[in-house]
Order: sequence, then C-alpha cells, then structure tokens
Amino acid sequence: MAFNPNEHQHVRYNPLRNEWILVSPHRTLRPWSGQVETAPLENIPAYDPSNPLCPGVKRASGLVTPIYESTYVFTNDFPALLENVPEPPSSDDPLFQAAPAGGTCRVMCFHPKSNVYLPTMKSEEVEAIIEEWINQMKDLGRKYQWVQIFENRGSMMGCSNPHPHCQIWASSFLPNEPKIKDENQRNYFKKYGRRMLEDYTKKELAKRERIVWENNEWVVVVPYWAVWPFETMVLPKRQIQRFADCDQSQKKELALTLQALVAKYDNLFKCSFPYSMGWHGAPTGDGLNEDQCHWTFHGIYYPPLLRSATVKKFMVGYEMLAQSQRDLTAEKAAAMLREQPEQHYSLSKP
Amino acid sequence: MAFNPNEHQHVRYNPLRNEWILVSPHRTLRPWSGQVETAPLENIPAYDPSNPLCPGVKRASGLVTPIYESTYVFTNDFPALLENVPEPPSSDDPLFQAAPAGGTCRVMCFHPKSNVYLPTMKSEEVEAIIEEWINQMKDLGRKYQWVQIFENRGSMMGCSNPHPHCQIWASSFLPNEPKIKDENQRNYFKKYGRRMLEDYTKKELAKRERIVWENNEWVVVVPYWAVWPFETMVLPKRQIQRFADCDQSQKKELALTLQALVAKYDNLFKCSFPYSMGWHGAPTGDGLNEDQCHWTFHGIYYPPLLRSATVKKFMVGYEMLAQSQRDLTAEKAAAMLREQPEQHYSLSKP
Ligand SMILES: O=P(O)(O)O[C@H]1O[C@H](CO)[C@@H](O)[C@H](O)[C@H]1O
Ligand SMILES: O=P(O)(O)O[C@H]1O[C@H](CO)[C@@H](O)[C@H](O)[C@H]1O
Repeated sequence: MAFNPNEHQHVRYNPLRNEWILVSPHRTLRPWSGQVETAPLENIPAYDPSNPLCPGVKRASGLVTPIYESTYVFTNDFPALLENVPEPPSSDDPLFQAAPAGGTCRVMCFHPKSNVYLPTMKSEEVEAIIEEWINQMKDLGRKYQWVQIFENRGSMMGCSNPHPHCQIWASSFLPNEPKIKDENQRNYFKKYGRRMLEDYTKKELAKRERIVWENNEWVVVVPYWAVWPFETMVLPKRQIQRFADCDQSQKKELALTLQALVAKYDNLFKCSFPYSMGWHGAPTGDGLNEDQCHWTFHGIYYPPLLRSATVKKFMVGYEMLAQSQRDLTAEKAAAMLREQPEQHYSLSKP
Repeated sequence: MAFNPNEHQHVRYNPLRNEWILVSPHRTLRPWSGQVETAPLENIPAYDPSNPLCPGVKRASGLVTPIYESTYVFTNDFPALLENVPEPPSSDDPLFQAAPAGGTCRVMCFHPKSNVYLPTMKSEEVEAIIEEWINQMKDLGRKYQWVQIFENRGSMMGCSNPHPHCQIWASSFLPNEPKIKDENQRNYFKKYGRRMLEDYTKKELAKRERIVWENNEWVVVVPYWAVWPFETMVLPKRQIQRFADCDQSQKKELALTLQALVAKYDNLFKCSFPYSMGWHGAPTGDGLNEDQCHWTFHGIYYPPLLRSATVKKFMVGYEMLAQSQRDLTAEKAAAMLREQPEQHYSLSKP
C-alpha cells in the first residue's frame, strides 16, 4: 500500500521548535461523546454601561475609561508583571533556581464599540489597530527585552470581557517560546546562510498545499507542523524582523489579511471563532543592538475548535505527557479555511 | 523591601525541561468573571447497560466487554496509533520532514464498577491496577520504545466516559516530553555524577516546603517549578528507573500513596478533581539494552482547577505564545493539599 498523508499516521517535524507532532488522520472517524462547550457569545450590545472597557465606564482601579474614538491603551488593573519588585536572592543549587522578573501589562481596546470585530470594522479602523500595535512595540521595546502582544478571543480561551481587546505583556527577560524560536532560527541561519522562515514562505508559495489566504505582502498558511486543528501563521512576503519594520504597504495589506483570515475563521462554524493569537519578531531592549538577521516577523493563531462551534480539541493526557497529536491534517484544515468566503457571515444576512 | 516568594513576582527554572516559568503571587487577588465550567459529574451508577466499559456491554467495534472482576485491558476502538501503516517517503528538505510512526493504543478499566475510584476502592484493588500497569509496561515495552500510561480524569480533561479507566499508547518513537526529560537528566548525570531526581527528592525531603504526602517508599511534592496550580510529582525514595523495577513494598506503598493523593485532591474542592496523570521512566524497546542510569521513574499529575470545582486556570495567550505563568505559589498549593484529610469526603458522609 502506498503512503497517503491524508490517511496514514506519521510524525512531522517543527523546525521552529525542534520537536515532532503525531498526525493520525484515520482518527477523524472517531465519534465524539465528550464535553461540549457553550457556543461563543453572539448579540453583544454596542455599549454596556457596566463594561469597564467601554468609553466612560469606571474600572476596578477607580479610574474611568475615557471617551475614546479609536484604540485605547491602559495598564492592566491586575497585572502579572509589575515594574519594580524586590529581586529573589541568587542560588547556587541547580535544582532551585529563581531569577528576577520585571515588566508591565497593558490592555488595548480595539474600538469604542463592543459589537464590532476585525472583519466587521472598516479597514482604516484595522489599520489604526496595527499602527497602535507598532507604537506599543516601539515604546515598550525601548526598555524591555520582549513585548508580547496577544489576544485571547472568546470565553473558551479565558477571555472574560467580550469587548474587542488584546493584551501586551512586556518583560525584562526573553520568555521560553521566543527563546526556542530564536535558537532554531539562528541555527538554521548558521547552517544554510538563509532565514528559516523566508525559505519556508517561498516553499509554501511554490507548493500551494497549505495556503489559506494571500495578497501582495502577506501569506497565511496552516503550517506543515501545526498542532491545533486550525492553527495558522501569518508570514510576510518581503522579509522584516520586527513589527516596527512594516512599511505603509505592508500595514495596509496586513489589515486586509487579518480581516479576511478572521472572516474565514468565523464563517467556518458560523460563530465568533475562539483563539489566542499574537506576534513574534526579533527581541527588543538589548536585542535592538544585536544582530537579529535570522529572525522573520510573523503572526500566530491558535484556535481550539475541532469539529463545530462547541466541540474543541482537548490537549490532555498524551499531548501533555508525551507529544502533540492531531487528527485532521494541516492540508485538509487549510483547504477548509481557504474555501470560506472573505466576507463575514453576519454581513451577508438579508 | 525584602524579597518574599509568596508575594513578589519572579521566574523559576525547571531543570527537567530546561525552561522557566513566571510566578506572579500578587495576582491571586484578581477577581474572576470569565468562563465557569460545569461541575464534575457525581452520582454515577455502579452499572450502566449503555456504557461500553461496563462488564457485558457491547462496544463500537461489535465486541462485547467480558464480565471482568478486576482490571480489564483491550485495544482502543479508535486508536491514534496503528501497528502497521505505510511509511512516509524520506525528504531531504529540513522544513518538510515526516517520519514513520508505529504503535498501538489500549484502554484499561480499573474496576468493574463505574461508581468507585482509587480512594474509595480497597487497597488490594489499587494494587491490582499497579500490577496491571507493570504488566502492560513489560508487555508493550518489549516491542516499543515508549509506553505512555495516562489517565484523563473528568470531562474537563476530554474524558468522554465516567467509568474509571486509563489509556496506554505505545510508540515506535520516543515522544517529545520524555525525549526532553531524557536529555536533561542525562546532562545532569554527566555534570554531577548523580541522578537529578534522586538529588531533587532528597532536597525536597530536607526542605519540607512542598511535600503533600509521604510514606516509607514514596513522596508527593508540588514541584518547585510547577506550572498547573495543583500539579504534583510522585517520586520514589529508593531509586528505580522503570515501573517494572518496583518491588513488593514499593507497589503496596504506591497504592496507599495514590489513594491518599486523590482523596486530598477530591477533598480540596469537594468534587471529583479533574486531571491528566501518567508515568515516566527510562525508555523501553531498544532502550532496554542501553545505559539509563540517569533516569528516575516518577508519576505526574496535571490538574486544571484553580479556585473551585468550576474555575480552572486558562493556559492561553501569554502561556501559549511566551511562557507558562502561575499565580498561586507551589508552596501555597502544597500546603493546601497537605492540610486535606487522607480519607475521601464521600466516605465520611453521615
Ligand atoms: O480518550 P479519547 O476520547 O481517545 O481522547 C482524549 O485523549 C486523547 C489523548 O490524550 C486526546 O488526543 C483527545 O483529544 C482527548 O479527547
Ligand atoms: O486576561 P486575563 O483575565 O488577565 O487572563 C487570561 O489571560 C492570561 C494571559 O494569557 C492568563 O494567564 C489567564 O489564565 C487568562 O485567564
């Protein structure tokens, strides 16, 4: 029998994380009788006087959110990272090592209205979000080694406020995930003299097996090594190392890319598709003065849904203790997203 | 101001995984207004004629589960790993690497009754589970490089059947998690000439800051580098490399340890505490003939709950994209579990 990647189990290598994932396509036939989730919230009011992210509402800190008209950024009222805290003593025991962690956490509202989202906003409004992301990266990047912009969308992803917003956590240290990506991109560059993600982007554009969307500046793929069922990467066609390196054309086309991608996600199961997303680029702070030519700036989307608006993929036992596992192949997932219209389903209601 | 680990943010090092986690104890004050889970199921009937894991019931495969009286093991009807499948062609592109994956998946019922669990079973019944785990490790370990025994307990952890059971996935390859632990234990052994987890166990027994339970043979700790709020490790006091190395005394005391640990978990929020748990030891298959003296056999529990039976820790945005983060310190979590009685709350009802 000949090997068919859409039928036969195999492992795939993730060169960015230097690890393998198990792909078991035959297992898509498995019936699901386990936990179903509450369907994502719909029909959110444009303004809710009890929602602290809405313009003019008082927050837990006692401060009032101003009457903002575009994006609005403030310091998180319950930050995981504070700027100045006493430092742990150093230890010479390799099994009990603690180290200092400084930082700050901000919240960024995308829009004054609670009931709009990227695909239902005007593209100028999405451009304003991108512009503010870049401002924040520049501002916090002067001081901090890593600035993680991320969005938890939907209550399934731990988001407790339906108003469109993201978070920005900046830290004095390089966290694990970017550290691993830094090492692997650096090793590839040393070995081949080329950027890993530049090579990868070119090859995906040539193979055309996992592309979800593309325009002149950006391409969205379900990566060959994807773990989450509908995981995607947003890759630049022209190489840049950091968000702040985007030129006008890249910003404009990125707005259109994000609008199309999220519309496709939402259209897939006709719901507000939950995910965690964020941006990775070359380290900042001291990293601004170091050679970072191995880095390619990119976006990552990790959505938990598998079969419908209420059935997610559980990353549990085997995945936590042994290795990531997926049933649906990356190629199948990419085709399903690619086939979705770029217009959000809510806009085509009669 | 002096550094207080129960108050001031810091990062801690996990030597088994060679990574850091962010600890933000001040953040325990954060109110929770996000998603609450359905409370874990209680009042399960002892026998359910429609449950394929109950004795005498027909399964999806058409086979009938026999009238078993202790444990019962069968091959999963929807296995992620099959024994014989065509192999992917080899590729010389470092960005598109696939490799063969052979294996098998089994299901192991712990007991003929659906309404009992480790702390409410007789200790002889728990000993029978341990004996069968060891049989399975020996049987599958002859052929396969890794045998992952794991249990997903509760629907919050993707478990779709309330009958007490676990799974056993054996593979022709060494999965990521054990590969990482193998490397780090090996490096430590090379550097210090001693086993990492033997040193760690001795130090935890001396420090007495993170111990949840101990008897003559075993100690349960919330590891210094724990990620999940109530994560624990089950460590042997006398070194062994694999489950199959347990002697009679270790088996008997392990049964009592698991009964006490799960009772404490269940007593904490007065519910059937969800978790994924499993066992890690030296690789099998070809690994049986290699030097594995750097390995210490141990158990791992990853429970998702944070504040109550219905509020879990969300490992999302920052955790997925940057670094694991916890609020509650390992020391506080260990104290909370240590204080719980060893008798299951359901047994003390009037
Ligand atoms: O027990 P099941 O239904 O086969 O499946 C469960 O455990 C598996 C192994 O951890 C996971 O891959 C699945 O996502 C989960 O639902
Ligand atoms: O947005 P919140 O409420 O601060 O918190 C949410 O995102 C954080 C960052 O990913 C996580 O640590 C929390 O577990 C999650 O609930």
